[in-house]
Amino acid sequence: MGNEVENISILRLTGGDRKNTEDVVAREFPLTIILNNQELVTLLCSPVKLKYLAIGFLFSEGLINRQDEIRQITVDEQRGIVRVAIKESGAVGRDTVFKRFITSGCGRGAAFYSADDARVEKVESRVEISTRQVLAMVKEFQNRSEIYRATGGVHSAALCDTKSILLFSEDIGRHNAVDKIFGECLLEGIPTDERIVITSGRISSEILLKVAKRRIPIIISKSAPTDLGVRLASELGITLLGFVRGNRINAYAHDWRIVSDNKTD
Amino acid sequence: MGNEVENISILRLTGGDRKNTEDVVAREFPLTIILNNQELVTLLCSPVKLKYLAIGFLFSEGLINRQDEIRQITVDEQRGIVRVAIKESGAVGRDTVFKRFITSGCGRGAAFYSADDARVEKVESRVEISTRQVLAMVKEFQNRSEIYRATGGVHSAALCDTKSILLFSEDIGRHNAVDKIFGECLLEGIPTDERIVITSGRISSEILLKVAKRRIPIIISKSAPTDLGVRLASELGITLLGFVRGNRINAYAHDWRIVSDNKTD
Repeated sequence: MGNEVENISILRLTGGDRKNTEDVVAREFPLTIILNNQELVTLLCSPVKLKYLAIGFLFSEGLINRQDEIRQITVDEQRGIVRVAIKESGAVGRDTVFKRFITSGCGRGAAFYSADDARVEKVESRVEISTRQVLAMVKEFQNRSEIYRATGGVHSAALCDTKSILLFSEDIGRHNAVDKIFGECLLEGIPTDERIVITSGRISSEILLKVAKRRIPIIISKSAPTDLGVRLASELGITLLGFVRGNRINAYAHDWRIVSDNKTD
Repeated sequence: MGNEVENISILRLTGGDRKNTEDVVAREFPLTIILNNQELVTLLCSPVKLKYLAIGFLFSEGLINRQDEIRQITVDEQRGIVRVAIKESGAVGRDTVFKRFITSGCGRGAAFYSADDARVEKVESRVEISTRQVLAMVKEFQNRSEIYRATGGVHSAALCDTKSILLFSEDIGRHNAVDKIFGECLLEGIPTDERIVITSGRISSEILLKVAKRRIPIIISKSAPTDLGVRLASELGITLLGFVRGNRINAYAHDWRIVSDNKTD
């Protein structure tokens, strides 16, 4: 933790008391993504793992699908710019890419009512996890959330197997935190089949579609899902666990992957 | 509460127990805004106050500035469409409007490093509020958050004077909740000078700029601000209060508007 937070002077009022003190706040960093020399978007993010964020964003928006489509990535941390050069072959020429991006609502709330619209395949993985493993993993997840503990102002996301956390990221945006995980997977060749994603944020349709595109069979959150998140999880074969707190788990879809504790020990 | 939530069957796992039960989740509704017959954006939102959301969104994005620029609003709740017709006069022709919207990153994280870039005037209001009034108002704010209590999955926003809540809205998106408030102000001719905004969400630069555009002198949140939110509040003369919980308030900028309890009684 360093770059992602800033110390500032504040006035703390408690009852009748006024005290000058210091507080730690999360930094908010504007990152502009330039795709094939054309400015695409400016994201507000936590200034770490910028390369992973850019690639994860492009993947989530359907602008890249595989690592070998990427020709070059240049990160200018000073100016807040990531330049990505991708192959413009076959159906996905530059104009197509930008047209698709812009007509889909600029990546801001592209709406899918059903799994068919989303053009994502159903997840067939038979992976199972016990309630004890879920609770232990969520506890480890919370312990890892350093910036959250310092600032109260960021989201976290993690990629796990059924036993431990493999990748972890924090960001002021819940979408960014998940995009950083999948950007890292894509660039470093880390497989996501049979894996589990934990997020601190709510599970909306957009988050659900992000994990579905990476064929994640289980998504876990401390927070609430939306109705559309639940519906898509049901249709896409994804186990959706919400409000995982203390020793309680709400299973909103495909609860058959959650087995009794002795079965996986 | 009705349209905004949905009852669904879930499996609740507690310790070794598995129980089928019901849960209430927030609905996520795709709303497409069509401006002067051209599709602009699809927002995912809670399906109430759609007209206010559309107008508040257009205001926040700088596509409209005053009520008299609006010629017609048609809401199709069934299909999730709001059509807005605005005057195309002077500098703001249709092409200009769309070009500006799209080049600013499609409303997704337009980045302003300083108050100058944002082209928003400094708020000069001399309004004051006591710590007791702040705490009482935040308590009332939390009591009003019906959908949050039912689902745990939405944000709230309110417009207040120093004594009570004037307008209140809830939405699955923290931006939408604030946009609904300002859309209502714009359409119903409700003044916002000298008013206070409370939000359940984090205060990022984008939220701060939304309230600055409506000349709000005080913004209050239960959650954290970002460094850019604090910097813009300082530059724009806005009192920023965060982490308002129990009897504690953190004042991040312009704390002179918070006075001792006896001064305002």
